[in-house]
Amino acid sequence: MEQEIKVAIYGATGYTGVELLNILLKHPRVKIVGLTSQSHVGKRLKEVFPFLEGPVGNLKITSDAEEEYDLAFLCLPHEESLELVPKLLNQGKKVIDLSGAYRIKNPQIYPEYYGFQHKYPKILERAVYGLPEIYRERIRNAQLVANPGCYPTSVLLALYPLIIERVKIEKVVITSLSGVSGAGRKPVQHFHFPEMYGDFFAYSLDKHRHVPEMESVIKEIGEVNILLRFSPVVVPTSRGMLSSLSIFCDKVEAKELYNETYKNEKFVRIVLEPPHVKHVLGTNLCLLYSFWDERVKCLQVISVIDNLGKGASSQAVQNFNIMFGFEEDLALNTVPSFP
Amino acid sequence: MEQEIKVAIYGATGYTGVELLNILLKHPRVKIVGLTSQSHVGKRLKEVFPFLEGPVGNLKITSDAEEEYDLAFLCLPHEESLELVPKLLNQGKKVIDLSGAYRIKNPQIYPEYYGFQHKYPKILERAVYGLPEIYRERIRNAQLVANPGCYPTSVLLALYPLIIERVKIEKVVITSLSGVSGAGRKPVQHFHFPEMYGDFFAYSLDKHRHVPEMESVIKEIGEVNILLRFSPVVVPTSRGMLSSLSIFCDKVEAKELYNETYKNEKFVRIVLEPPHVKHVLGTNLCLLYSFWDERVKCLQVISVIDNLGKGASSQAVQNFNIMFGFEEDLALNTVPSFP
Amino acid sequence: MEQEIKVAIYGATGYTGVELLNILLKHPRVKIVGLTSQSHVGKRLKEVFPFLEGPVGNLKITSDAEEEYDLAFLCLPHEESLELVPKLLNQGKKVIDLSGAYRIKNPQIYPEYYGFQHKYPKILERAVYGLPEIYRERIRNAQLVANPGCYPTSVLLALYPLIIERVKIEKVVITSLSGVSGAGRKPVQHFHFPEMYGDFFAYSLDKHRHVPEMESVIKEIGEVNILLRFSPVVVPTSRGMLSSLSIFCDKVEAKELYNETYKNEKFVRIVLEPPHVKHVLGTNLCLLYSFWDERVKCLQVISVIDNLGKGASSQAVQNFNIMFGFEEDLALNTVPSFP
Amino acid sequence: MEQEIKVAIYGATGYTGVELLNILLKHPRVKIVGLTSQSHVGKRLKEVFPFLEGPVGNLKITSDAEEEYDLAFLCLPHEESLELVPKLLNQGKKVIDLSGAYRIKNPQIYPEYYGFQHKYPKILERAVYGLPEIYRERIRNAQLVANPGCYPTSVLLALYPLIIERVKIEKVVITSLSGVSGAGRKPVQHFHFPEMYGDFFAYSLDKHRHVPEMESVIKEIGEVNILLRFSPVVVPTSRGMLSSLSIFCDKVEAKELYNETYKNEKFVRIVLEPPHVKHVLGTNLCLLYSFWDERVKCLQVISVIDNLGKGASSQAVQNFNIMFGFEEDLALNTVPSFP
Repeated sequence: MEQEIKVAIYGATGYTGVELLNILLKHPRVKIVGLTSQSHVGKRLKEVFPFLEGPVGNLKITSDAEEEYDLAFLCLPHEESLELVPKLLNQGKKVIDLSGAYRIKNPQIYPEYYGFQHKYPKILERAVYGLPEIYRERIRNAQLVANPGCYPTSVLLALYPLIIERVKIEKVVITSLSGVSGAGRKPVQHFHFPEMYGDFFAYSLDKHRHVPEMESVIKEIGEVNILLRFSPVVVPTSRGMLSSLSIFCDKVEAKELYNETYKNEKFVRIVLEPPHVKHVLGTNLCLLYSFWDERVKCLQVISVIDNLGKGASSQAVQNFNIMFGFEEDLALNTVPSFP
Repeated sequence: MEQEIKVAIYGATGYTGVELLNILLKHPRVKIVGLTSQSHVGKRLKEVFPFLEGPVGNLKITSDAEEEYDLAFLCLPHEESLELVPKLLNQGKKVIDLSGAYRIKNPQIYPEYYGFQHKYPKILERAVYGLPEIYRERIRNAQLVANPGCYPTSVLLALYPLIIERVKIEKVVITSLSGVSGAGRKPVQHFHFPEMYGDFFAYSLDKHRHVPEMESVIKEIGEVNILLRFSPVVVPTSRGMLSSLSIFCDKVEAKELYNETYKNEKFVRIVLEPPHVKHVLGTNLCLLYSFWDERVKCLQVISVIDNLGKGASSQAVQNFNIMFGFEEDLALNTVPSFP
Repeated sequence: MEQEIKVAIYGATGYTGVELLNILLKHPRVKIVGLTSQSHVGKRLKEVFPFLEGPVGNLKITSDAEEEYDLAFLCLPHEESLELVPKLLNQGKKVIDLSGAYRIKNPQIYPEYYGFQHKYPKILERAVYGLPEIYRERIRNAQLVANPGCYPTSVLLALYPLIIERVKIEKVVITSLSGVSGAGRKPVQHFHFPEMYGDFFAYSLDKHRHVPEMESVIKEIGEVNILLRFSPVVVPTSRGMLSSLSIFCDKVEAKELYNETYKNEKFVRIVLEPPHVKHVLGTNLCLLYSFWDERVKCLQVISVIDNLGKGASSQAVQNFNIMFGFEEDLALNTVPSFP
Repeated sequence: MEQEIKVAIYGATGYTGVELLNILLKHPRVKIVGLTSQSHVGKRLKEVFPFLEGPVGNLKITSDAEEEYDLAFLCLPHEESLELVPKLLNQGKKVIDLSGAYRIKNPQIYPEYYGFQHKYPKILERAVYGLPEIYRERIRNAQLVANPGCYPTSVLLALYPLIIERVKIEKVVITSLSGVSGAGRKPVQHFHFPEMYGDFFAYSLDKHRHVPEMESVIKEIGEVNILLRFSPVVVPTSRGMLSSLSIFCDKVEAKELYNETYKNEKFVRIVLEPPHVKHVLGTNLCLLYSFWDERVKCLQVISVIDNLGKGASSQAVQNFNIMFGFEEDLALNTVPSFP
């Protein structure tokens, strides 16, 4: 039998943590040896999630990982990840951090957008942004992968073909729709079921943490400053994300460009009709639809992902597979449930 | 007792027809004397909608209105409205047409966007576009009101303050979200409940009938050609509409401008937080939120309405009230159900 | 102008409180003079619910009603109602209590089912159970009305025709489905939107507070002890309630019996097809469908109401109308929104 | 490499067909060689369901299976299965029929409940009812398996422990809730998204096809005639089923009895709290909760399944695994998506 990689999941009982567990259970080369969660210490996993049976279900949730392991997935609040990462790196562990603590290269962004000083700028430099379609080679050798946010994943995959081709971009306007799970698992008034049922609304229109994250990656790969107009909207469903991008740029042959850029990618598909969010739920897929609007002189792109899949946990597993030299789609060959 | 206005509703069993009935039942000056529907001829209304009891529920649905009346509300397919309107006008009837058949002044738009030649350009000229906040005075004396589409209502109310102030506009990018009822009552595969449940998707991204409708009004009131980039998205709920507009224009004091423009309007409210769709369901309200994004140099506006309310049937009643000199909010002072 | 009744609403920001406000705003004989809520003291109502504009929206929320009033609606936790009711009665106020504190005649039920000793058994005796179709005459002269629970309303209206006809009943099995709003407005984990979305589950199968409430009324009006097998299930929508009753009893002519019992009732309708919950949302209606299952020798009844309407707030207004001699349907002639 | 079983799916584009495809794609011993569907002949599967890529997605949909295969899954209307089964059996094929055409032993039931004469009573005799927890041994050697209906699966697993223990049962009252997918994929008015959204209702209260199916199995295994009072209710979600059974019978030690009966079953779990439907979505699990209600002298059982999983397609794969001697949970070890 081939060797197993031992992993710990910090923050295992939030939505990204459970999704990660769900995927890793199908992974033939992974052994989960530690689960942490501040809110359920001492319980077995199956007491919190009765649908998680078997060996994993019997694992005890602890406040810190107790057994030796090779890699930690961090599904923690930003501030907790910020402090934990240096400790784990010092112990020689590999880390995939699903928080925003190590995503933005410029530490000066953090006080304004995250409310804390970033005390570890050197580690920030070493962190690799975990969007495999852009940074695959760096991910391969990374000790620390900063797993991208959901909005940035859907947006950057839509912009990447233009940026690497150095297409001149004048303006980018983005409206992104997200299911409610993107807001996390903590119960709050406006996401109480009766109130969110039948509702939808925009939020954080003037300042969203994902904006500097996106602009920072664009700058790094395109050597260009593009200021994004970004409007997120939450819609009344649990999962899924759709980004509508209107890009004013030099005219391009949209479909060819997108097909060419992603021709070798397993998880990015160029589609000929506007894609349905339901067609990617539970998968690591990103579907991209694009066309040149000759009337308005603008490239219109639609990008759909599962916010907890390619937007979080399955992308983390994709990164994991790359870091350990496994087939990139190991445990990720899923088909969405229908209907 | 004050005199009642007798009205007929053509196409009474579609969503806009039922919503109209629902509102008119509360109208102290309206008597509904005729109901038509191709699909339910001969039935009483309450046989189709068991929740519509009382005198209206007992009304027979006919293929044509049989009793004498003063005004007809047309909730018909475009082609049927196209042909019926001239006949009714000839009979001296007033008409509020909820279809698109008489909304666009330029008849040459129709073949491309509606698939038919417009045979009545003279009537088109006489038709008044029924957006009271813009065309109130014309509506007062109109014999034919072309009731606006839902997307145009949400978008034009957001653009109007800029246009009448002759603010120089460079680009307008719109993504609009709509509940499924906007697509009408006819069952189709992708709106079959299990398939739409948890889904959302963009559609008609390159050519939507509401684009020339919006551009035509902007041109008329602003004497300017603005080409809109418009992306509609359907979201998994029954009712409601949210338009996100990113407007590249000369810098404006957004809140002041919007407050000033709508200070005397009962149904347009300027709000200080991004509004919730659920706060307008079942009402004739439009909530507008706007701010100047200094970073991107762009005005961002969010506009929410009930697609079947201000976006269709309650706006039709508002027009009706204006045409007959009633208080504009008669039967329209509703509060949304919560939760 | 006719005199207005001044009312205060205690606990105005919960679901039953807001629904009550929504209805009372349409009531021509009511003036709301006081609103209390522990969680929002000092705010104006429209700051909590932006859709509640006008004079009511400007009302300040206080911790106790400060202005003089005639009747108090209590939308409070059981324990708070328990203590407040005696004080208000002493002040000569009329009270409609929407909690369970005064619904059950036998005070000995309270420790087991509500977790507190009932210290006011004399007041309990004076309280009138506010189900108008059964207790209309007593309500007329009541100072204290204990407004029924939602499940009991849907169930008792279904059983009442049998009980007053003294039909011999052997067994009653009830499964009741409720929208999530029935569980109140406080955010909790399993009603967090992403978790409740697509879920449904039974709860409190062995001990639900509404069981002794129902059995107590049956005993009072039928002079018979019937033990109910009651299973509540919460379903993934905001509002609505459906009770399925299988009643093993002497054979009856179901439709005739139900029609006869309710022939003069405005809010109870006997229907010929299994009713849809959506046909009663936002109304004070109860729709009843019944048939005799000759195969199993059992009467099957389906009862639907809006849990926040006839199951709570609109029923409270119906009681109010009776107590003050108004038309019973004042402010209650609503038609459900569709779709 | 181990030998693959070649299968054809008749009616591959309905909900049970797609779910079957979804499961079989993960099955290491299955090769899908034929797909039929009347409505999409000539298309490749991925043209109908863009999320089904890979070799299966490229399969052409035909009107009849063209390649040689070992077993056919029939996801067809009852009448079509009725006629196709004899032909396939004659050709020596194994068949798992997901329709109701061969579920009920007594052919005289068919005219009344299915509207057709059953012309193949001999084949009916040979058909094995595909509920593995009851008929595993017969399934092993069956050529024709009649896969159970969703309601019967949830109900029979709840009743089976009592029946094999010959517990004396007096009455059984069942209310079952089902997601809308149980009604199939054909668009109809009351399942049009805006209309079903927020609605729930009972149907077929006096005559449902699954009643004789359940009673027939009970009679066969328990040698007893029990008449079920069965009330199905459709709730506004896509998938899932919950049956609430109130069973008047001799007193039993419920949890012990259920644990004992199912101690060796992988897919039936006895739980200690009322189970959530969401905990079984996408799985082959049935969760059972039971307790003796001493007050009413009645056994109350809650049973939850995925109507398209254990209630249809995953149960079909379980039967397939048994018929070919595979591990019973091959391709069925799934964990529900959360949230």
